[in-house]
Amino acid sequence: MRVDLDVSIDPNEYSFSHDIRVRFAETDAMGVMHHSSYVAFLEETRVEYLRSLGRPYGELRDEGFELAVLEIVLQYRQSARFEDVIRVHTRVRSMRAASFQMDYLLMIDGSICASGATVHGVVDKNGRATRAPAWLKTLLTGSPS
Amino acid sequence: MRVDLDVSIDPNEYSFSHDIRVRFAETDAMGVMHHSSYVAFLEETRVEYLRSLGRPYGELRDEGFELAVLEIVLQYRQSARFEDVIRVHTRVRSMRAASFQMDYLLMIDGSICASGATVHGVVDKNGRATRAPAWLKTLLTGSPS
Amino acid sequence: MRVDLDVSIDPNEYSFSHDIRVRFAETDAMGVMHHSSYVAFLEETRVEYLRSLGRPYGELRDEGFELAVLEIVLQYRQSARFEDVIRVHTRVRSMRAASFQMDYLLMIDGSICASGATVHGVVDKNGRATRAPAWLKTLLTGSPS
Amino acid sequence: MRVDLDVSIDPNEYSFSHDIRVRFAETDAMGVMHHSSYVAFLEETRVEYLRSLGRPYGELRDEGFELAVLEIVLQYRQSARFEDVIRVHTRVRSMRAASFQMDYLLMIDGSICASGATVHGVVDKNGRATRAPAWLKTLLTGSPS
Repeated sequence: MRVDLDVSIDPNEYSFSHDIRVRFAETDAMGVMHHSSYVAFLEETRVEYLRSLGRPYGELRDEGFELAVLEIVLQYRQSARFEDVIRVHTRVRSMRAASFQMDYLLMIDGSICASGATVHGVVDKNGRATRAPAWLKTLLTGSPS
Repeated sequence: MRVDLDVSIDPNEYSFSHDIRVRFAETDAMGVMHHSSYVAFLEETRVEYLRSLGRPYGELRDEGFELAVLEIVLQYRQSARFEDVIRVHTRVRSMRAASFQMDYLLMIDGSICASGATVHGVVDKNGRATRAPAWLKTLLTGSPS
Repeated sequence: MRVDLDVSIDPNEYSFSHDIRVRFAETDAMGVMHHSSYVAFLEETRVEYLRSLGRPYGELRDEGFELAVLEIVLQYRQSARFEDVIRVHTRVRSMRAASFQMDYLLMIDGSICASGATVHGVVDKNGRATRAPAWLKTLLTGSPS
Repeated sequence: MRVDLDVSIDPNEYSFSHDIRVRFAETDAMGVMHHSSYVAFLEETRVEYLRSLGRPYGELRDEGFELAVLEIVLQYRQSARFEDVIRVHTRVRSMRAASFQMDYLLMIDGSICASGATVHGVVDKNGRATRAPAWLKTLLTGSPS
């Protein structure tokens, strides 16, 4: 599975959003948020999304699953600055037996600052690819597996 | 310009490489290098590449240019661990008037651990897109602009 | 001015607190929050403290001041883990003409996980030490300068 | 054991040094290296120090020991900038049964940019304090335990 670059820039197509304020530590000498800092914003939003569904990521790990990141893509459209609040919209884009893609739209005061996607593989504690448990598929897609 | 995902996994097709050892701070609770840490490895390699060409990035910035990151993609193939030495191969993949793509192949002891690409826009000190200076195009592509 | 290590571990002695959840990116291969990640937690709390006083740090920077970090000390008492919410208590400990110390107490569910302090110098845009503006001294100490 | 703030600023008193170049990702919007980035520089230097002694840190971990960071202190004296090479001098300052202090002196082109110290506790895989193995004490202090 390769990442699908065709990420929607319409916030209404996303099912969840989470706000994160840019730390000073996340800026760089260009005076803006460093491009690597966005990666942790996507991660924090995924984790909050699972928590909002009533299944914190820590629980998933306790059951012996990890959601390894197989691929990431980010398109930077407008700089973010220190103290900006970024609203990160996310949704599950597609789901297969052992992997799924999540899309992200990042906005500041209603303007798009970035968009992106991550592809995740469900793996066991030994790092081996494994089928996603049924409850996770149902949770993420809203339909029974 | 959108990133071209078709990154070569043959190290012989790359013109430059740079070795970086994984810090403990760059690992995560899965026991491996965190997926966000790779982004700084690409950046450090770009900077060393420019230095190897005799034009440190700091000089470029002093002349009023920045190489803004417009897009990034990373495909993770095999985990990297604390103290692993990652050899990051890079090359300029394509060059346009005001932007260019760099490709990366990351290897540990001859095995591929990740691959990726970054798209850069040449911007002036005010963040406005501008044409790449001729010397930069020549430098990066090896042919006169 | 050297940092005063005698930081209070009584949360009632602190005037402000701010909650931050540990990101997965902030953990390490020991399975806990990496010791470097705490530094950004102190910084985020300082910034929220200034905002709570009605003077966001960005405003201070716009007026030509920076609060350079001159010294930092952290004592780690109990590990923090992924998804833990850390309550960071802070207060201004002491204030001089051009520098001040802030103390921090970090707690998880009422248990102390770390304590620390930062010493800051007020500097102008050229990085030169300068007297703290009167409003900042009043703001931070609650008494006129 | 509390950290001893009296760190030597004479490089000749240190037994090991390691050079690290400042990454762009490690700078901030003040245009200099962010104060949190120094923490990973101390860590990388500790790890290189152990490797130089013929006992990589990974081996120590494989034997069931971890060197938990109990305390850290850093004094920032002069800003470091992107592409600066920082020479981090280190040495074991004092050693007890289950803990030890390491001191650090950070220099750029012969000028001091920062100094600091870390206190470490030897812990087993369950995070419990344990006596340092004899070989580690001998290694770090140069004398039999």
